Amino acid sequence: MDRVPILKLGNALLVTIQVDMHDRLATALEEDLSAKIVSSRAKGVVIDISGLDIVDSFMGRMLDNIAAVSRMLDAETVVVGMRPAVAITLVELGLELNGIRTALDLERGMKMIQARLEEGRDRDETLADVE
Amino acid sequence: MDRVPILKLGNALLVTIQVDMHDRLATALEEDLSAKIVSSRAKGVVIDISGLDIVDSFMGRMLDNIAAVSRMLDAETVVVGMRPAVAITLVELGLELNGIRTALDLERGMKMIQARLEEGRDRDETLADVE
Repeated sequence: MDRVPILKLGNALLVTIQVDMHDRLATALEEDLSAKIVSSRAKGVVIDISGLDIVDSFMGRMLDNIAAVSRMLDAETVVVGMRPAVAITLVELGLELNGIRTALDLERGMKMIQARLEEGRDRDETLADVE
Repeated sequence: MDRVPILKLGNALLVTIQVDMHDRLATALEEDLSAKIVSSRAKGVVIDISGLDIVDSFMGRMLDNIAAVSRMLDAETVVVGMRPAVAITLVELGLELNGIRTALDLERGMKMIQARLEEGRDRDETLADVE
C-alpha cells in the first residue's frame, strides 16, 4: 500500500489507520492530509485507530505530528477508537498525546468537531455584534 | 492485520478497504459486518475502496457477497471511491456488481442511504394512513 485513504465527511476529514505505518507511508499521509485540509477547508481531522492492537513510539509521534500540522492549518485532531491496551502502552512510552483530543468512537469524534465549529460561529457572531 | 475496522456513522456502517483481502480477512469482515448490522440496526453499509489501485475477481466476489448478506439483513450496500481503472477491470472480469450501488465519494454514499431511509419512512407513514 502506498497511500492511506483520506475521506471527506462534512467539515472533517477521516483517516482509518489499519496497518503498521512505516516511514514512507507516514510521510505520505502527513503530506496528503495537510494538502487536503487546505483544499477541502476542513476544520477537523478524525483518526480512527480501532484497527490497531498495538502501538509503538513511531506511531505515537506520527499522531503528534499530524495534530501539530493540522492545528497550524486551523483544524482540530480527534483520535477515536483507541483500545485500552493501546492507551496503556502510549502512557508507558511517555507519549500522552498532549494537544490531541480523543473520543470513544467516530460518532462522538464528529460531534466534538461539530461542537467546536458551533463555538467558533457563536464567537464570530459576538465579534460582529461588538463591531 | 486480523480485522478490518467497521465504523458506525448514523444509520450506516463504514468500512475502508486498504489492503488486499486474503481469504481469512474477507471471511472475518463478512462475519463482523453481518453481526454489526444486526447489533447496531444499521440500514446501510458504505464500503470505501479509494485505497485500491487494482482489484481482482476475489475482491469483486467479496463485494458481491457482502451486498447479498447485507440485503438479507435489510441494509443497502454502497461502494464509494472506485477508481476508473478499478471500474474497467471489474467490467473486464465480468463482475458488474449488479445489486450494488456506487457513489463517487463517502458523502454521496451517505446521502444515498439517507434518501433510502426517508423513502422508507414516507412509505411507512402511507401504510399507517391506510390502516
